[in-house]
Amino acid sequence: MRPYELTLAEAADAVAARDLSPVELTDSVLGRIEAVEPELNAYAEVFADSARRAAALAEREIVAGRRRGPLHGVPMALKDLIDVAGTPTRAGSRVREHHMADRDSTVAARLAEAGAVLLGKAQTHEFAYGLTTPQTRNAWDPDRVAGGSSGGSAVAVAAGTATFALGTDTGGSIRVPAALNGVVGLKPTYGLVPADGVFPLSWSLDHVGPLTRTSRDAGLVLAALTGRQMPDVEPDFGTLRVGVPRNHYFDRTAPAVAEAVAAATGRLRDLGARLVDVEIPFAEHTQATLWGLMVPEASDVHDEALRSSPELYGPDVHALLEAGRLVSAGDYLRAQRVRTLMRQAWTRLFDDVDVVAAPTVPVTAVPRDAETVRWPGGGAEPVADAYVRLCAPANITGLPSLSLPVGLDGAGLPIGMQLIGRPFDEATLLGIGHALEQTGPRTGTGRPGLAPDRATVRPPVPLLAQ
Amino acid sequence: MRPYELTLAEAADAVAARDLSPVELTDSVLGRIEAVEPELNAYAEVFADSARRAAALAEREIVAGRRRGPLHGVPMALKDLIDVAGTPTRAGSRVREHHMADRDSTVAARLAEAGAVLLGKAQTHEFAYGLTTPQTRNAWDPDRVAGGSSGGSAVAVAAGTATFALGTDTGGSIRVPAALNGVVGLKPTYGLVPADGVFPLSWSLDHVGPLTRTSRDAGLVLAALTGRQMPDVEPDFGTLRVGVPRNHYFDRTAPAVAEAVAAATGRLRDLGARLVDVEIPFAEHTQATLWGLMVPEASDVHDEALRSSPELYGPDVHALLEAGRLVSAGDYLRAQRVRTLMRQAWTRLFDDVDVVAAPTVPVTAVPRDAETVRWPGGGAEPVADAYVRLCAPANITGLPSLSLPVGLDGAGLPIGMQLIGRPFDEATLLGIGHALEQTGPRTGTGRPGLAPDRATVRPPVPLLAQ
Repeated sequence: MRPYELTLAEAADAVAARDLSPVELTDSVLGRIEAVEPELNAYAEVFADSARRAAALAEREIVAGRRRGPLHGVPMALKDLIDVAGTPTRAGSRVREHHMADRDSTVAARLAEAGAVLLGKAQTHEFAYGLTTPQTRNAWDPDRVAGGSSGGSAVAVAAGTATFALGTDTGGSIRVPAALNGVVGLKPTYGLVPADGVFPLSWSLDHVGPLTRTSRDAGLVLAALTGRQMPDVEPDFGTLRVGVPRNHYFDRTAPAVAEAVAAATGRLRDLGARLVDVEIPFAEHTQATLWGLMVPEASDVHDEALRSSPELYGPDVHALLEAGRLVSAGDYLRAQRVRTLMRQAWTRLFDDVDVVAAPTVPVTAVPRDAETVRWPGGGAEPVADAYVRLCAPANITGLPSLSLPVGLDGAGLPIGMQLIGRPFDEATLLGIGHALEQTGPRTGTGRPGLAPDRATVRPPVPLLAQ
Repeated sequence: MRPYELTLAEAADAVAARDLSPVELTDSVLGRIEAVEPELNAYAEVFADSARRAAALAEREIVAGRRRGPLHGVPMALKDLIDVAGTPTRAGSRVREHHMADRDSTVAARLAEAGAVLLGKAQTHEFAYGLTTPQTRNAWDPDRVAGGSSGGSAVAVAAGTATFALGTDTGGSIRVPAALNGVVGLKPTYGLVPADGVFPLSWSLDHVGPLTRTSRDAGLVLAALTGRQMPDVEPDFGTLRVGVPRNHYFDRTAPAVAEAVAAATGRLRDLGARLVDVEIPFAEHTQATLWGLMVPEASDVHDEALRSSPELYGPDVHALLEAGRLVSAGDYLRAQRVRTLMRQAWTRLFDDVDVVAAPTVPVTAVPRDAETVRWPGGGAEPVADAYVRLCAPANITGLPSLSLPVGLDGAGLPIGMQLIGRPFDEATLLGIGHALEQTGPRTGTGRPGLAPDRATVRPPVPLLAQ
């Protein structure tokens, strides 16, 4: 097996056992970047030399008996919203062409402290304000969208060009590309992972979190980001109550997605969990609330640049940011009040269940030129709305949500399922995710979270996406 | 001495010693109401019968050995924004003419639990959205404004028509009338006293707190409101550092006010405290930030009623609420961001000092028909702006602030000083206030916090107010 194919946990074990050196691992991943990056464009910038130097340093420390932990010497990518001292944070935007970060974000500093090797900055939809990352190609099919806004991070992990990555998630931006590329994405509880030094989209909705090939890997990264050890225990399935949404999450969802999620939920029942039907509260207000919060906050962030250099924005992002200026304080405050009601209602929901299991996105990766998703009898839905719709409740409420792959659709594209949990109960989500990974069907490549090599799958357009 | 003249602590001691019965005390205060209320109009409604019944019940409990604490059997007034089950909360507005509260606010429930006797609902400026309480007269001079918006509460305490009262404070509404009527007003730390069941003005700025005749009394009420005992200890003046503002608080302040505050601060130095010059951060943004937060939040609260019955609002309040609809989300968010910077800067300020001592308002009670305050060489300032300006920083930051009387101006009108402290450090403010009350000049009536009987003082118009 080639080192770039290893999960983070496997790589960490091999490094700890001195079966694999950080240099060897990093060289393997850099070689993989050389091979597939020209097609995928997952990276905004690759720091090959400094990555090699960091790997060599890690190797020396480990040989000297100073191994820092599981991330030591493991190569990773940071979404290009995340400041690393001495490098630009371009945020996928021409506005930031001449940017230079003068200090590390807290997350970059913590990963550096853990000994992780920075490979480069991963592509993002401009200012993270979109769900497709148009400059990057899906790891499973280059004619499909990568998903966004952490598209580069997800594609790199899926393609073997990073052993793990960090992304950010304001309306689904970690989980959407994770689902579309068949990897694991964790949006932690709001506030758990520090967001300073990470360029904001909408500060009351922004989350930083890992993209990895397995749930266990996500736990390792989260531990490094928070300084808290993730308990590596299996949930007690005999007492676990899994909420199955009666509304919202299975409305206008592709049959293959709904079936794969139902099958995964059925495996939880087979493991002993009790399935409980739940009514998702305020679901009909989800989109209005998300956009009511996000658009004015985003506009506020860009207030100066929008006035001084509007021409440097892409037309889609510019239109959204301009729209934000027209939102009244009353509309924003009403969105905040609905958020409060949603949070309270979700808190009550968790009286009856321990997690909610649902699709991450209602449809797999759409073709790159698709603008809408067509639903039987339901007209056309903008791609962005379709991808945001099921992820947004966890952003509005701040609840943790883990997306993991649970199969492929008829076109051979990955399907994502999300597990939403109580605040700060990431451990339960990761434990369930791990159990599903152990019992689930392999997705064809033989390696968890890894896309087929060189994107050989060229399936027909799936029924519902066009 | 007549019972209505007693401070809360004196009344509590007399009741505990069985020297005074709650019925006797309540009858005395009700008699006082009968004598002076026609002139003052501090009450929206007086519940004489139910007050007598509550006093009789308290008396029976106390005689039976079941005294609940210092508030048991003590008569008090609640600002007419505070829900009491089975009574209307009219909030000084025709909009609420037919209101009826179906449950107690938490503060009303806690005072009832402590055995306090409810005398009635005190007048407020319409929906608390003003600084004068025009329907009520100043307890020291009926031709002067009561101050607002807790004008009724302050006047009742000053006039002997309530032994204590509750008010609310969004931009100074407890402290302004406290200062103008020579009583003590405490705006506690944001969130310390529950505001549920209290009609909101602007939820991120609203505070509920006591108006009393002494700092010790304020501590007794705060203890009942929070369920926490206030430590009744004198601050260690040997280590106390008192911040004296170099900017903002003494700009455009009447000389008599500045002198009285400086004299009180000097007494703290005499007690051993160290005076430290401090620079008030972001002072120039105070008014814009306060109004940027308050106006849109207030409009949002009134959204429905403004559409359905605009004619029921007074013209001043209606204009402000309509203005709130025009505020953009961006303006609101910028005010929230300045608030964050102000909070951080004030937190740093408290590295160097333990409290900040400053005037509560820059000018004593203005004539009822005054619209502006004229400053030498500085033009005319709207009365509302003048009264809000020095109080607002503690609302924006949520820091606790205690206003207490520190003398009279040349017209014989009370001067208020405020002490601003660290979050949840009300005990230090109350301890300093108590020390100042022990060492300070009496304000002429012989009784702490009590206005001259029947408003005999008719001074000339003070230099700076017209």
